[in-house]
Amino acid sequence: MAAFPFEISAREGAARTGVLKTPRGDIRTPAFMPVGTAATVKALTVDQVAATGADIILGNTYHLMLRPTAERVKRLGGLHRFMRWDKPILTDSGGFQVMSLSKISKVTEEAATFQSHIDGSRHVLSPERSIEIQADLLGSDIVMQLDELVPLPSDDDKVAEAMRRSARWGERSKAAFGARDSQALFGIQQGGVSEALRRESAERLTEIGFDGYALGGLAVGEGHEAMCEVLDYAPGLLPADRPRYLMGVGKPIDLVEAVWRGVDMFDCVLPTRSGRHGQAWTWEGSVNLKNARFAEDDTPLDKTSDVPASRDYSKAYLHHLVKSEEILGQVLLSWHNIAFFQTLMAAMRAAIAEGRLAAFRADFRARQRGA
Amino acid sequence: MAAFPFEISAREGAARTGVLKTPRGDIRTPAFMPVGTAATVKALTVDQVAATGADIILGNTYHLMLRPTAERVKRLGGLHRFMRWDKPILTDSGGFQVMSLSKISKVTEEAATFQSHIDGSRHVLSPERSIEIQADLLGSDIVMQLDELVPLPSDDDKVAEAMRRSARWGERSKAAFGARDSQALFGIQQGGVSEALRRESAERLTEIGFDGYALGGLAVGEGHEAMCEVLDYAPGLLPADRPRYLMGVGKPIDLVEAVWRGVDMFDCVLPTRSGRHGQAWTWEGSVNLKNARFAEDDTPLDKTSDVPASRDYSKAYLHHLVKSEEILGQVLLSWHNIAFFQTLMAAMRAAIAEGRLAAFRADFRARQRGA
Repeated sequence: MAAFPFEISAREGAARTGVLKTPRGDIRTPAFMPVGTAATVKALTVDQVAATGADIILGNTYHLMLRPTAERVKRLGGLHRFMRWDKPILTDSGGFQVMSLSKISKVTEEAATFQSHIDGSRHVLSPERSIEIQADLLGSDIVMQLDELVPLPSDDDKVAEAMRRSARWGERSKAAFGARDSQALFGIQQGGVSEALRRESAERLTEIGFDGYALGGLAVGEGHEAMCEVLDYAPGLLPADRPRYLMGVGKPIDLVEAVWRGVDMFDCVLPTRSGRHGQAWTWEGSVNLKNARFAEDDTPLDKTSDVPASRDYSKAYLHHLVKSEEILGQVLLSWHNIAFFQTLMAAMRAAIAEGRLAAFRADFRARQRGA
Repeated sequence: MAAFPFEISAREGAARTGVLKTPRGDIRTPAFMPVGTAATVKALTVDQVAATGADIILGNTYHLMLRPTAERVKRLGGLHRFMRWDKPILTDSGGFQVMSLSKISKVTEEAATFQSHIDGSRHVLSPERSIEIQADLLGSDIVMQLDELVPLPSDDDKVAEAMRRSARWGERSKAAFGARDSQALFGIQQGGVSEALRRESAERLTEIGFDGYALGGLAVGEGHEAMCEVLDYAPGLLPADRPRYLMGVGKPIDLVEAVWRGVDMFDCVLPTRSGRHGQAWTWEGSVNLKNARFAEDDTPLDKTSDVPASRDYSKAYLHHLVKSEEILGQVLLSWHNIAFFQTLMAAMRAAIAEGRLAAFRADFRARQRGA
């Protein structure tokens, strides 16, 4: 049933480390997936992304179906070939962006109908169409079911309704996906901040049976504390032998707290978005390179890194680039941030393997000032 | 007298190929210098620039003296260390940008006084101050004298006056520069489109004695044909045993015509500026990647290139990036264009060495459609 073997090599409390094996390469977990929205991890070449140690990146169905269109990507040989990334790609279902970016016309049991934020053109996204786009046209390695989510806070009734529709859409997604050897399908748990709804969602999804399970509908306004409270129980409701993916998260402190609670995979635009705005993530929290205190700081962001952006350029130079609004500043800080996130994940994998994640977490929380 | 040996290995007509030897590395001539205005070749890492085969880049005194200031660059170890470029750097004198970018207060025999285009602050740039900034603070390998230039067309009197002032400033620059082993000083010929004034300028400069000679005051509105007419005689007025540098030029066709007429060095913002606007330079002229005809063109810009930007990414992908206004599109096209300019220079060096530049030039002119 499970397309990709998931080998857990060590556990500490709820946390675990291992490898998700795919035909395009191993994904070391816990894993952070840089976001390549429109077939590009913003500002970076694929070689720069690979140099950070990223095993997998994420592509956005919504953006790609609108431009250059999934059919065009298919004609050009699929998303991997189109963007020159030969390691695994996970694609989202498009559901989140339909809700957050497009002008929605209508969401029915059948499908979401929406207008493009680019040119106003009308599109229909059903569970089956999302699978077709991801699995058959883009050629994604890990395909996400279409789900419906609601912003938090929302009425329990609304949250429950969206969760149950998501489960029904999960079933249709599974049927449309069928049986595949070289691609995996992940279901998405919903249920907001309600343990009962999260439990019901997990039971429905497990009944259907997926290759992996995402925690959806978090990081949508509930805050770090409320998210952590959900993560105290929600990952444990999902099958322990399959990867658990917390969608759209997050800050380094979120990653540490979620790994501690049993999450295996993450994606977030934060490192690249921060980088484009002059912000660098470090072991001591985030810093804005525009700050005058860096103007003559001749030290690099991370002299122990293998990545040139982190190791070779001084903070003074980065400060100058940011102040001068030079593209290279956006490139180097995006690159550094992705590298830092990968370094953080590698450090957590090593900590779990050596049974010292609890100490790592305590130390990390103490050091992350201003995060 | 000449700080850097200039070894000419082959000639064809007025054209020549050779090596200008500097302590930071050889400059193969004819050479194209990518412009690194504000201590960055826009959008590119130094590794990407180096991968194009560039032997030398140019830095702008005007921009750097205003931000981050030449004194700060000095405190941070000089321009090479600041921007992590360890091969030669030529800096301009700042004169051109004072005339074109700043709000000028006054130009007297003593100095130019101007207001920063960034914050309106008041600055003085004299020949001596320009030498101090370039040679002592930035640590440039090739230092340019401060000159005064006038837009074309201008009255002969104005052109003559600016040329003679430039010669007097050249003398002061030489005195301020003194004798140095590891840095070179270039004088700048002026005289507009007048052969008599170009001759007088060359005689005055040769009398002073420089390590190299630039052709200034061209590509300032006179057009390709008028520039070529000046280049029919102006390079030959300068000492044959020293490098000749045509400032601020140009399009590929300009480079070919100028090399044919005996020019050894060039700089221009065109490849990076074009790249940021979706334009790629090729053997067949320039093309705009935004054009719909590239939407499903699966071929790269230059499959024979060693540079990933030219070799690995399809025109269809570049089209998508440009249409989507992705930073990576600006990066890849800037990178490709710099690489193409370097490939063009290498091809001309080889053609001169093999005595076939005349054929190369004829072929090039025929192929450059739309350039």
